[in-house]
Order: sequence, then structure tokens, then C-alpha cells
Amino acid sequence: MTVDTVPSPVRLKAVAGPGQPEPSPALEQLYRGFESELLVPLWTEIGDLMPRHPRSKAVPHLWRWDRLVELASEAGRIVPVGRGGERRAIALANPALGGRPFATPTLWAAIQYLMPGEDAPEHRHSQHAFRFVVEGEGVWTVVNGDPVRMSRGDFLPQAGWNWHSHHNAASAPMAWIDGLDIPFSYYTESQFFEFGRERVSTTEKATPERSRSERLWGHPGLRPLSQPEAPAATPLLAYRWVDTDRALADQLALEDEGHPATLSPGHAAVRFTNPSTGRDVLPTMRTEMHRIRKGASTLVQREVGSSVYQVFEGSGTVKVGEQQWSVKRGDMFVVPSWQPFAARCDADSHGTLDLFRFSDGPIFEALHAHRTQSGELA
Amino acid sequence: MTVDTVPSPVRLKAVAGPGQPEPSPALEQLYRGFESELLVPLWTEIGDLMPRHPRSKAVPHLWRWDRLVELASEAGRIVPVGRGGERRAIALANPALGGRPFATPTLWAAIQYLMPGEDAPEHRHSQHAFRFVVEGEGVWTVVNGDPVRMSRGDFLPQAGWNWHSHHNAASAPMAWIDGLDIPFSYYTESQFFEFGRERVSTTEKATPERSRSERLWGHPGLRPLSQPEAPAATPLLAYRWVDTDRALADQLALEDEGHPATLSPGHAAVRFTNPSTGRDVLPTMRTEMHRIRKGASTLVQREVGSSVYQVFEGSGTVKVGEQQWSVKRGDMFVVPSWQPFAARCDADSHGTLDLFRFSDGPIFEALHAHRTQSGELA
Amino acid sequence: MTVDTVPSPVRLKAVAGPGQPEPSPALEQLYRGFESELLVPLWTEIGDLMPRHPRSKAVPHLWRWDRLVELASEAGRIVPVGRGGERRAIALANPALGGRPFATPTLWAAIQYLMPGEDAPEHRHSQHAFRFVVEGEGVWTVVNGDPVRMSRGDFLPQAGWNWHSHHNAASAPMAWIDGLDIPFSYYTESQFFEFGRERVSTTEKATPERSRSERLWGHPGLRPLSQPEAPAATPLLAYRWVDTDRALADQLALEDEGHPATLSPGHAAVRFTNPSTGRDVLPTMRTEMHRIRKGASTLVQREVGSSVYQVFEGSGTVKVGEQQWSVKRGDMFVVPSWQPFAARCDADSHGTLDLFRFSDGPIFEALHAHRTQSGELA
Amino acid sequence: MTVDTVPSPVRLKAVAGPGQPEPSPALEQLYRGFESELLVPLWTEIGDLMPRHPRSKAVPHLWRWDRLVELASEAGRIVPVGRGGERRAIALANPALGGRPFATPTLWAAIQYLMPGEDAPEHRHSQHAFRFVVEGEGVWTVVNGDPVRMSRGDFLPQAGWNWHSHHNAASAPMAWIDGLDIPFSYYTESQFFEFGRERVSTTEKATPERSRSERLWGHPGLRPLSQPEAPAATPLLAYRWVDTDRALADQLALEDEGHPATLSPGHAAVRFTNPSTGRDVLPTMRTEMHRIRKGASTLVQREVGSSVYQVFEGSGTVKVGEQQWSVKRGDMFVVPSWQPFAARCDADSHGTLDLFRFSDGPIFEALHAHRTQSGELA
Repeated sequence: MTVDTVPSPVRLKAVAGPGQPEPSPALEQLYRGFESELLVPLWTEIGDLMPRHPRSKAVPHLWRWDRLVELASEAGRIVPVGRGGERRAIALANPALGGRPFATPTLWAAIQYLMPGEDAPEHRHSQHAFRFVVEGEGVWTVVNGDPVRMSRGDFLPQAGWNWHSHHNAASAPMAWIDGLDIPFSYYTESQFFEFGRERVSTTEKATPERSRSERLWGHPGLRPLSQPEAPAATPLLAYRWVDTDRALADQLALEDEGHPATLSPGHAAVRFTNPSTGRDVLPTMRTEMHRIRKGASTLVQREVGSSVYQVFEGSGTVKVGEQQWSVKRGDMFVVPSWQPFAARCDADSHGTLDLFRFSDGPIFEALHAHRTQSGELA
Repeated sequence: MTVDTVPSPVRLKAVAGPGQPEPSPALEQLYRGFESELLVPLWTEIGDLMPRHPRSKAVPHLWRWDRLVELASEAGRIVPVGRGGERRAIALANPALGGRPFATPTLWAAIQYLMPGEDAPEHRHSQHAFRFVVEGEGVWTVVNGDPVRMSRGDFLPQAGWNWHSHHNAASAPMAWIDGLDIPFSYYTESQFFEFGRERVSTTEKATPERSRSERLWGHPGLRPLSQPEAPAATPLLAYRWVDTDRALADQLALEDEGHPATLSPGHAAVRFTNPSTGRDVLPTMRTEMHRIRKGASTLVQREVGSSVYQVFEGSGTVKVGEQQWSVKRGDMFVVPSWQPFAARCDADSHGTLDLFRFSDGPIFEALHAHRTQSGELA
Repeated sequence: MTVDTVPSPVRLKAVAGPGQPEPSPALEQLYRGFESELLVPLWTEIGDLMPRHPRSKAVPHLWRWDRLVELASEAGRIVPVGRGGERRAIALANPALGGRPFATPTLWAAIQYLMPGEDAPEHRHSQHAFRFVVEGEGVWTVVNGDPVRMSRGDFLPQAGWNWHSHHNAASAPMAWIDGLDIPFSYYTESQFFEFGRERVSTTEKATPERSRSERLWGHPGLRPLSQPEAPAATPLLAYRWVDTDRALADQLALEDEGHPATLSPGHAAVRFTNPSTGRDVLPTMRTEMHRIRKGASTLVQREVGSSVYQVFEGSGTVKVGEQQWSVKRGDMFVVPSWQPFAARCDADSHGTLDLFRFSDGPIFEALHAHRTQSGELA
Repeated sequence: MTVDTVPSPVRLKAVAGPGQPEPSPALEQLYRGFESELLVPLWTEIGDLMPRHPRSKAVPHLWRWDRLVELASEAGRIVPVGRGGERRAIALANPALGGRPFATPTLWAAIQYLMPGEDAPEHRHSQHAFRFVVEGEGVWTVVNGDPVRMSRGDFLPQAGWNWHSHHNAASAPMAWIDGLDIPFSYYTESQFFEFGRERVSTTEKATPERSRSERLWGHPGLRPLSQPEAPAATPLLAYRWVDTDRALADQLALEDEGHPATLSPGHAAVRFTNPSTGRDVLPTMRTEMHRIRKGASTLVQREVGSSVYQVFEGSGTVKVGEQQWSVKRGDMFVVPSWQPFAARCDADSHGTLDLFRFSDGPIFEALHAHRTQSGELA
């Protein structure tokens, strides 16, 4: 069978509009010719393909943490974890992306859930990943044989093509979120995957307080001379909450003392970086923690590329494009490309509003395509 | 209206298979919960999203140049060029990409056609573009006021966000191909577009042999000290056939003299590069010219990312995945991600087989995601 | 007066040897011609200028800390600190470098001494500098208004062209070492210097535990989003002993547990790096801390460029070229270019042998001229 | 013998001045202590070591080409070329650098001379080098087996650690200039040298019009895919006068047409660059050709680092610091660090004033130490 025998998927219809040719029998015949030769003219598509600025197919949307946990917990009861399905991970599906498990056109965001004593089997893939823990503890991720503790507030990057598995060493279930560049590598068709060992060794199921990666790379400004360079992705496998919290608190304290340290009044922020390069932890994903004082707001900002946020602590109001939500611990929402975003911490919030954010920003920076706009937005 | 009132696009069905949970009423209920909350589990999707290696949605396909020219010529007769439609460009639509004007998931390839005396209006866009001229002459592209001649064999890169228009100063129509990263910027939602002046000035419609960009940047290894650095994209607006041809001929001659100069016996190749960095001319697209001696073949190779080829001269046989075609001047074909590719020049070809190629390779190199495999392919 | 009227400094003598012309009256006359025209032939100089490998003009040498402190203390008694002299710094003068204050051809190393209540005035210079504190505390260095505490084991980089002063806020004198690239910038003639304010403000004489730079940049892997990039030199102004010590201890503990973490058995090492790039803290100087277990040795190594070491703690034996010394806390020594170096920690050392090291390595790496050789050296 | 038994080279004398301690017996005793311990205080040296801006030890100086050629020719008559002496190269010795063969503190500049039929033996060294040909032809430099023609106006870079020899295939002697970073690598002690074969093979003594390096890399903007990357130094071994001349002429013609193309009115300039990176051809040396119209002048400029110029063609006036000279073809002069430089082409010059220039600029750029100032200089 040759391709010619299948019906062409191209369908063209003469339409009216600026720059469109007048409908005519000749035009109809031309369009039929295009269809049979698998051709599409620019002039009928340009408005969709080349807009004045990004008009995301995705929409702003909010997922409530209590519902995510409730469903994940139910999945924990009836869906086993094992080879083939690989992970009990349940992904956010942006309502405007056709039911695909894509939070945004480039980003995957999921809640993962592991029952006491369970193991998620070892594998590796070219997709970059991370875990972020909004609550709980007791799971260790074993990366190339190095067990990494996961506890509330910890951020664990997982660069592509490293072997990894998870095991719950505690007596309670644990939930966390996974972020990956699955949609990006799916669209660009650059994925590789390999199954690992059926079981990791007993020593790999140890539960140390600190991973070997932290003992080597987790000291500020200090590079271990025995270790090779790691230009593609961070060699540090855990960024602990104690450090993140202190860094954010320091910024607000410096602001109180009159020194420039915040992005705007009351808005502190850190980016998780590869200590061997100072750049983003992963080639395709930017990860940050933001802290907003009680009663303070961020500037309004929009940028090329999309983001996913999870509320780590506190309560507040977030605006994404035309949407606005009251949010609290664990809630997740998406900011599509070029949509304005701002957040405010409630005056009666339990502490500051702490927001974990990840985005596809490094893709655009690497390709010189990044744009950002803040302040008064037209 | 809130998002909740529209029906969820998520549809889940319990299926059998390795790693899949047993169908049961509880599972059904769980899936209904997922649907209502806009959630999709990994375990039903992992095979599609995370294959062992890229399995492109696109398929290999060939477009014959005589048919492309025939239809473009007919469009020249009945479709005017002007503001709104912007260009008389007709794009290749990969048969497996749903009728969209996408040659591959990331690349746009089109034939553009301009009648004698016609102008294509000025605009600029963030998408990167280039022109390649397989035959003809007489059109000048005006880039930021600099008229650039287009003649057979010439390659003209057009980095994003530069003003440009075309005008046909000759007495015959002219066709050429356009390559852009439109699908990539469409999926990643990073496009900006702006209309330019209705008419370019008379002096800009001059028809110089060499553009100003060539007079500044077109001297081998010589940088004009008056010009700023151009890290994002090449400042050289035309790569002339006389240079490309000579470079390829030199490689084959060196091979004849016993020196290492070719990619494999009988296969010479050059990449068009930014003279200010030595890197690809555009952040998202790699462009090359390949020359295969009569009777010689390339190695079989596959790589992450997709390519579009146009035969510039000669005749031969190309294999893409399971497909094989005899090709001649002007024919265009696509090589989807990770599909093996090889070409052979017919023993009775009119000269060597010269192939112009463009790919999305720089995207993957910038993101440390490039992989290539050559020789005996499993 | 023209240059011709001063006697030429060139003096040439015909000598015998391989590649030398035969002495003759004609040669004598030629050499007189060279002298009068300020010319020198390569053939008489090539052995000195182009040796098979670097033959340093500097020699290995050791300075004892007790003598350095004794003389610095005496200087504290009789030499005031103030504008003009700027610092009570006393530099190591390599015995083979003509009495110049150059520890090596590129590096300056000095002991600096400040009496209770004293101030060293504000200035800035293009030379890069750092402080390292082998003992004592009580001095703050104020860098662009940010007071930075100096205590035993702390490393304080001071990139070029930042305003800085020192003040001793304690009731005892304090000594520390300064490292700078003064000889390098002297030979290459690239120095700039500017005097600062006569007095720094009272608020700048505060004595905080942590500097503002540490509060912004001293958190592992966390970049403050409010701060600009710092590609040329580190924005972190203090690397505290508690972190350095822990990083070295972690490496030895990992080695005990069977994991690769040390440079060679019993030899741990960290490099101080710019957290915004992961590279050396200063463009011209590399700084490291090495720890050798009791009874263990480093590998023998030599490299292009020179180093200065200071013993931070413990006792041991070091070999530099043909020299060998027993060393203890505070002792300083130089390793000239391409001279083999090795160190051993005494079996009865008080703890490990901890060595602070600085070198000019980044200069050669930046210029692609770095070479290193270790293990069995010919 | 220990170092202690040799007299200390340190000599200190109490002097009067701002920031200097009062002379006293105690100070004398302190200084004697410094001397015996090989120490030098900063306060007596700071004025020399840390000036407000670079004050070069070198002075501006001019060497006349006719005298250089005359002496080189005489050397050709009586000094053989061969193993040991290696090259018949005669170096410019800056009158203020102690009779050493250093044109500036970092740069070597020499005239080299080869008689008909002579060979200069093969060797390699880590020092970077280039040749520039102000007149004549007939010599080929063989680089790693690739014979490279040398003719008037050609620039031939010779990156460190490549085997090379020269042979004069013509019936007349030939002179050219060599530029190297010998003084820089001498001060920084980073030199390696190796003798090559006694004779190069007959095939290597071929006299092709174009070298293999040119056939691979000498096409504008085209990278040969078979060749590895060359980040450290250019793979292109000759930059031909025909290209350089055309590039400069194009800039002046563009200026005539009203387009920005020159550094200042009447002053065109190109830099020789590595086509694989767009950066300087050599890690330590910048090389440029400048063209000044009849009657036009350059701006006054000074910068960190030193330069050597050779007049390629035309006549004019150059000012270096306080010096001013009338110059013509072949004349060479030096511009020490931070000395103002300007040039003017005589109104009755034979054509434009073309100046070849080389400098140590890349060293300072790599180390973030470059500064430049132009226009009105204080």
C-alpha cells in the first residue's frame, strides 16, 4: 500500500477575509490540487500560526489539593504499582488540550502516591523530571544507587537518563508531585526509555538522612574536586527545605533592613540551580520558590512559555489571565504562555504565601526566544 | 461561565495489559473521578508517551518538484499576494499530521512563488526562516532595508524579528522554498508577529549583485570591526552557490588526493554557519548541503529530530525508514525523528547528487538532548 | 632627545653551540648592527625562551608562620596604617625573583596585620584578591558597604574593582593572609587603582555574624532572583569554615563507606567556586582546601602555573621539586610552575593535614594552555 | 646547601612619603628582619605595583623596514639556518625592556629571513605564532604536513603545538614577520617545545596555490562536516590578501553609499577570526588589518594591553603617547599598554594607509580585564 491510496487529510475551503483570494471555480480546483498533493497554503493559516503574540491553546486552570489527594489515595487502594505501569502517577490534564495528560503544551505535572512498603520499579528515560514534596515524608528515591530522602519542602531534580526507583520506608502513604517535560519531548519526538532491574539491592534501600549527592555537592560554593563536571544537569539530587526557607527569610529580612534583596516589595524568590554551572537544574525546566509577605502582592508579569504552580504554604489570591482563585496549601494551577500572572498573600494567611513554580523557560532562553513583560500590561 | 460547566475532555477506559489494574467497578469509579477532575493516569499512557525510542507521528513522504511548481504557478495566476495573506507560500503537509501544514512536527517547508513585478509585503516575526533557490533568479529579499539577490543555489537565512519583504524584479515568475520553525513555535507558543510598511522605498528595491550583509560579513574568517556581535543568528544574509559548490568540490578533490575531507567515501558536506560564532545560522534550524559522487552512497544514519531535504541537482535513490524513492532536481522529502536515512547517487546521474537539508538539530543540541546513530542500525 | 641618543640596552656576544653561527668579524659586525637597531636574534635566546617544558625562575621556598607573625606584630607596633601605604601587608619575596615582593611570577602572598581598633582605608583596584584566616578573629572587611566577618578557616574572595576596607572591632590584633594577582597584572600592565572615602560610615562598621552577600548567595544551589548575574567573579564574599570542614569530612566519610569521593585514597579536596557560574571564584586565581588523612599522602602532581600553600591545621611533610620540609600550622610555601608536588600527613599529626592552596590555574585554562601530569613523573 | 646560606635578594630602605613610616632604628631593625625572612612590605611598593592606571615599562618605538631587511639580509649571508638555532628570526627589543627580545611585555615580533632553497627545521611549541607577509613570496610553511603558501598581504596563524617548518621554493630570498606570545608564556612559565623530524618529506615540499586547510575551511560561512571542532585556535592556516583587501574596500564603498560600515569616517577594519568560533584566531593574540583613507584619521584610542603594528601599504603619520612618526611600507612600531594611539593617512599617500596590527587583547578579554577608551582622552 502506498500513501497515495489513503485519503488525504488535507481539507481546504475558500473563505472570505483580508488577504484571501476570491472564491471561484478556479480556486476550488486549485485547492483540490493542494489537497491531493498534501499541500496547505499559508494565506488560510497565517492568523492561527503567526499571531501577534502567543495565544495559548491551554487555559488557566486550578486543581484542588484535597481532591488530588483523595483520588490518589483511592488509586493507592485499588491500583497496584509495578512493571509496565511503572508509577502510580496521576497527571493534570489541561481542559483545553483535548484530554491529554498535559498541564501545559510542554509540561507534565502529576501527583504520585506510594503506599507503605511499596516500591516503584527502576527505570530511566531521557525526559527530565523532578519531585516536590508539599507534605509528608518516608519515601526515598534511589538514583543510580544513591538513596535520597523526600520530606516536606524538599525539591528533588532528576535529570534525564539516570536510573531511579522509589520506595516507601514508612508506615503511612506518601504523596508528592512530579514535574516532567513529557509533552515537550512528545511533540519534538526525542524520547528514550529503558527498564531497569526488577529489584534494587537492600543497601540501596537504606534510608540515610543525606544522600551521597548532597554530601558531595550540597555545600555552598564548594566543588568536590573528585567529581566530573556536570554541564547538562545538576549533580545535586536534593534541595532541602531548611535551606530554601532560610534563603527566603533572609531576603525578607534584608528588605526590612533597607537592602535590595527582593524582586519587588514583599516578594522574595530563589531559583534552584546546578551548583556546577549556576544555571537551571535541568535543561528544559526552571524551578523556583516564591514567598510573598502577608498582605503583599507580586508584580503582574507575563512571559513566553508556560508555568505550573503549587501552593506550598499560606493562603492567597492568584490571577491568571482572566481567571482568579483563592488558593491554599497544595493547590495547583497553570499559567499558559504570555498570560499575565500575579499573586497576593491574604492579610490573614497562616504565614507567608509560599509558591513553588516550574516552567519551560530554559528552552526559550537556550534558543534566544525568551521574552518577558512586567508591570503595566497592555 | 466557569470551566466546570463544560464537559471534561478526559475519557478513560480500563484496559488489559502489563502494569494495568484489573477492570472493576471501583476502577471505573476512580476513572470517572479522574475525568471530572481533569486527571489522567500515567499507567494508561506510558507506552505512547515514553517509548523505548522516538516513534514519530510523522511519516516519510516525497513531494515531486514538477507538481509543486505546477500548482504554485496556478496559484500565481489566481491568488494575489498582499497584506493579510502576506505570502504566496504553499506548505508541505505531512500525511500523518492531520492535514496541518507541517512537514514534520517542528518544521515548515513551503514553495513560494512570485510573479514578475510582484511584491510580498513587509513584516517580521519571531519565527526563524530561510530561503533556498533550486532554480531561477530575479527576486530580491529586502531585509531591514538591505536588498539580497536570490539565484539558483543560494541559501538565504532570515533570523527571527527582522523586517523583510520580497520583490520580483525580473520578467519571469520565480519559485523557491521557504523553511521555518513555525510548527515548533506553534507547539511551544512562542510566536510574535508585526506588520511592516505598506511599501518599501525605491532605493530598497535596488537589485545589487551583493547585499550589504555580504559586503560586511561574506569574507572568509574576517570580521568587520564596526559591526556588533550576533550571537543569536547569522548577520550574513546570503550564502552563494559559487562558494558552496567550490567547498564541496574541494572536499571531493582532497579525498581524491588521499586526505580526510569527506564524511564517508564519496560523501562531501558543508554546514551553513554564523560567521560571528561558527555555529548554526539559526537557533532552531540546521542547514547543510551534501554532495554524493556518482555511484557512491552515504552511510545509514538516524538521529533525534526531523529533517527536510530538497534535491538540488543530480538523480539518485533515497531511503527513509521503510520507504525508498528515486529522486531528481527539486524533489522534497521528509525524514522523521529517529528514522534511518541513506542516499545513493545514480551511476548515470547528471553530475553528483546534491542534497540541500534542513533539520531541527540545534534545538536538541542546545538542550543536551541530541543523539545520533550511524552505520549498522539495529 | 630621541631614543637614538640613549645607549642601546641590547648586548650580543657570539657564542659556540648547536645552531649558533661561527664567530667571525662579519658576525661581530652583524651583532653590532642588531644592537644599534634594537634587535636580538632568536638563535642566541631560544634555549632560554623556549625550553622543553617550563623551567621556573622562581624556586620552592618555605616561610615559617611564627616568624611571619613575629615580624608582622613588630610592624603593628611601629608602622601605622593609613592612606598612602594603605595596608599593613608584608609580602613573601621568592628568593629567585630579584627581591621583588612576588611569591611566584604571577602571585602575591602576604600576611596582613591589624591592631585593635585600627582601620585600613577604603580603596579599590583591578587586581583580584582574597583573604584567608589561619587563626584569630575580630576583623570585618567592608565590601561595597557590606561588612564581612573574618574568622579562623574562613575564605573571603575580593574580586577586582570593588570598594573595600578593613576594621578590627576586637581587643586583640589579628593576622591573616592576602592573595592577589599583583605580579600578573604588573607584568601584563593591566592595573587600575582608586582611593575611596577617608572614613566608612558607622553603619558599615557593624559586626554582623553573616554578611549580606552570604544571606543572598550562601545557600547551596539557590540563586536569589533579585540579583544580577556575576560572570566575572563570585558575588559570595565569605566561605565559612563550618561548610568547608563539613564538605571535607563528608568526602572522607564517603570514602570510608566505599564510595568514590576523594582525589586519591585519603585525600579530600574542594574548590571554592562562584555560585552563579560554578567556576573559580576569581578570573585569575583558583582557591582550594585539601585534607589528607593521618598517614596518607597525595599523588605526586605537577602542572603549568604556580601555587602558594598555607598549612591550615595538622603537621606533615611536603615535597616541592628537590625540596622537602616538615610543616605545621600557618607555614607557607610556593610550588613553581611544572615542579612536582606531594604532601603527606604525619602519622602523629594533630588531626588531618589541611592545606589551603591558591594558584594561577584559571589564567591557563581560559587561554587553553593548561597542562597537568600526575602519578609517576619522569 | 640550603637557601638560607645565600644572601637575601631583598633590600629595603626607609623612605619618606605619604603613608610611609617614620625612619627610626626600630624600623631599620624591622626591615633587616624582613630582608632575612625574604619579605617586602606593601607600603614601599604600592606606588609601583598598583598605579592609578597602567604605566607601561615599555616605550613607544619605531623600527624602519629598510634597516630590518638590510640586517636580515646580512644575516642571511652569514648565519645558517638549522637545528638548534631553528630559525633565522631577529626580534624587536623594546628599548625599555632591558635588552630582552620583547617588543612589548607580552609580544614577540621578529623579521624572519629565508634564502633560496633553504629549510627551517620542523618543531612545535606551545607558544602561539603567526606570519604576516609585507612583501615577497616563494616560501611555504608546512603545518602538520600541509604546505601553506606565503605571499604579500597574507596572514598565516600558527596555533601552539602544531608541527611546522618553512622552505623557500623560490630563487630569491624572502622576509616576513613573525608574531608570537613568547614574552607572555615566558613570564607566566607555560612553555613546551619539541623538535620534529630532521627533514620533511618531498610531498610536503609541494607548492600548492591553496593549502588543504583553506580548501576545507576557507569558504565564507561554510563548515566542513568532516572536521572536528577547533575551539582553541583557528583551523584555517591562511587568510589571503585578496579577501582582506576586498573586505576593506567593501567597507569604504559602503561608507561612500551612506551605510554604517567603518569604525569612524574613513577608517575600515577587519579582524582575523577562527571560522569555527568567530573569535580571535589565537587564544592570546588578536590580529587585524586597518585601512585609512587618504587624508583621514582614526579616532584616538587607548586600551589595556599592548600592540605591534606594521605598515602594509601607503604612508602616514602615527602618534603613540608622546611620540609621533612618519611611516611607510614595512615600518613597525609598538603601542604600550594604555598609551593613546592614532594614525593619519597622508593626503599624498600612495593609496590608503593599510596597517597590520596584533595585540594581546584576547588575554584580557578572557580574564574579564579588558578596558578601552576612545575619543577625547584625559
